[in-house]
Amino acid sequence: MNQIKSLNGMVQHLLELGVNKKIAVAVAEDDNTIGAIIEAHLSGFATPILIGDKTRITQLLVGENTDPSSFQIIDIKDNQAAVAEAVRMVKEDEADVLMKGLVGTDKFLKAVLNKEKGLLPPKAVMSYVCALDLPKYDKLLFVSDTAVLPYPDINQKIAMINYSVAMAKRFGIDKPKVALIGATEKPNAAFPSTIDDATICKLADRGQIKDCIIDGPLDIFLACDKASVEIKGIPTPINGEADALIFPSLESANSFYKGQMLFGGGELAGLIQGTIKPVVVMSRSESKKSKFYCIALSCLMA
Amino acid sequence: MNQIKSLNGMVQHLLELGVNKKIAVAVAEDDNTIGAIIEAHLSGFATPILIGDKTRITQLLVGENTDPSSFQIIDIKDNQAAVAEAVRMVKEDEADVLMKGLVGTDKFLKAVLNKEKGLLPPKAVMSYVCALDLPKYDKLLFVSDTAVLPYPDINQKIAMINYSVAMAKRFGIDKPKVALIGATEKPNAAFPSTIDDATICKLADRGQIKDCIIDGPLDIFLACDKASVEIKGIPTPINGEADALIFPSLESANSFYKGQMLFGGGELAGLIQGTIKPVVVMSRSESKKSKFYCIALSCLMA
Repeated sequence: MNQIKSLNGMVQHLLELGVNKKIAVAVAEDDNTIGAIIEAHLSGFATPILIGDKTRITQLLVGENTDPSSFQIIDIKDNQAAVAEAVRMVKEDEADVLMKGLVGTDKFLKAVLNKEKGLLPPKAVMSYVCALDLPKYDKLLFVSDTAVLPYPDINQKIAMINYSVAMAKRFGIDKPKVALIGATEKPNAAFPSTIDDATICKLADRGQIKDCIIDGPLDIFLACDKASVEIKGIPTPINGEADALIFPSLESANSFYKGQMLFGGGELAGLIQGTIKPVVVMSRSESKKSKFYCIALSCLMA
Repeated sequence: MNQIKSLNGMVQHLLELGVNKKIAVAVAEDDNTIGAIIEAHLSGFATPILIGDKTRITQLLVGENTDPSSFQIIDIKDNQAAVAEAVRMVKEDEADVLMKGLVGTDKFLKAVLNKEKGLLPPKAVMSYVCALDLPKYDKLLFVSDTAVLPYPDINQKIAMINYSVAMAKRFGIDKPKVALIGATEKPNAAFPSTIDDATICKLADRGQIKDCIIDGPLDIFLACDKASVEIKGIPTPINGEADALIFPSLESANSFYKGQMLFGGGELAGLIQGTIKPVVVMSRSESKKSKFYCIALSCLMA
């Protein structure tokens, strides 16, 4: 397949393939996400199953000038029960994707993480990867961890790498370039994460991490800007053309992507990783467009 | 004075005031910075004193179509001796600003940090503050620490706040809004920096940190975007209008500003803080314009 280089391109790809995935929305009476859900439904790549308070869900759909009869709605007024049913449907293959509606993230994730009934396999690392679409970069940037792991240790970082690589492959990138981000390119004990990075590079050299080209620590310039690589004269196989950025902390990944959304004209699609099926958890402050892209990404990954 | 809202505005301000500061450049035979030095000289706000290998400095100036006789050049071929002389001139008020040329940052800072002959008072915290000029933000953003302190503790953070406030005041901001940056707005033991932030807010409430409005932890959206503050309904005196961002780690500040330089059309001016006189240390990978702005900022602060 051709490499998908934008989030719009991702949507086009879904439409061309005729993808249509079932999305179980837990506590769907959520005016923050209903617009994006309707848009995904109308686009044709998603069939939402709206689980929650049917009266309020119907009101919201009517308020958005949409015909409620074109949606499957499961009437469960208790939030916890609605989440449990949505998780069950995904686990038992009645739906392809789980999505959070008007329920606290903690309560929602508790059901996802439930050992017996949840969606995370034992010992799997849960993480969050964003596909960032930046007007000034000529392809997508897969960025993690923007939401789950505060200070990823080396094993969590390796999981993040594998998730980013798996995602990049769905976008048609056979051997993604993965940059391990630090403040400088010098591994340095003052930044423990950079020592992990050096170890990860060695694992990659020995083929113990596969299907990608890894280097780090690298700063944002060396990871994403060829001119900086030339000026600094640092030999790196990433060569300013990173597909994925693995950040040393949630704070750094989070500040980077939020800065790009505000000041760089960025759009994003993000997804929880590590679960047996895609799980969509969106922040209220994401744009409507980014919410739509999150749903599209979940359908691509399902 | 009127608030200066851009780096160009800063240069205009220097010219209107007729500022002219002496800049001692250590090991000045540096083709990475000579262009910016010449530009600052021609602009009129800086008088460079070029210390280093006179033959090579002269060649560089001629190569840039500049008349070497219009510059004061002090011929010292040994790098360490050139740095020592530049530091001495600044310490003894023969120059207003110290600037690094073609010499390693470690060697240069060793002279700056020398207990007897250096420029850092005992117990002072050395930090680095950048003034970021972003096309999509309607004023400057003072960002720290982008270069010196890996994981600032609470005392280092308070020093960073005071430096940012002092810098903002030179730009005509009487009571700058200082946002302590985290991944979310919830103080949380999983992110130790956010606990420091809560303590810092309490110190500020009690008037133990002065001349600014402080809040945190806040994410980039709540710090810099009014719309996000309204959507999230978080009451904060920063209100999406931060003047200064205090980051929890060098990695996060560094990734944020480098991302903005690459993808947000940003320009910056940065300066070491804590020394008795301004110290300019520039990265090779900064743009020529940013190098010029660094020199201008040092003249504003001198």
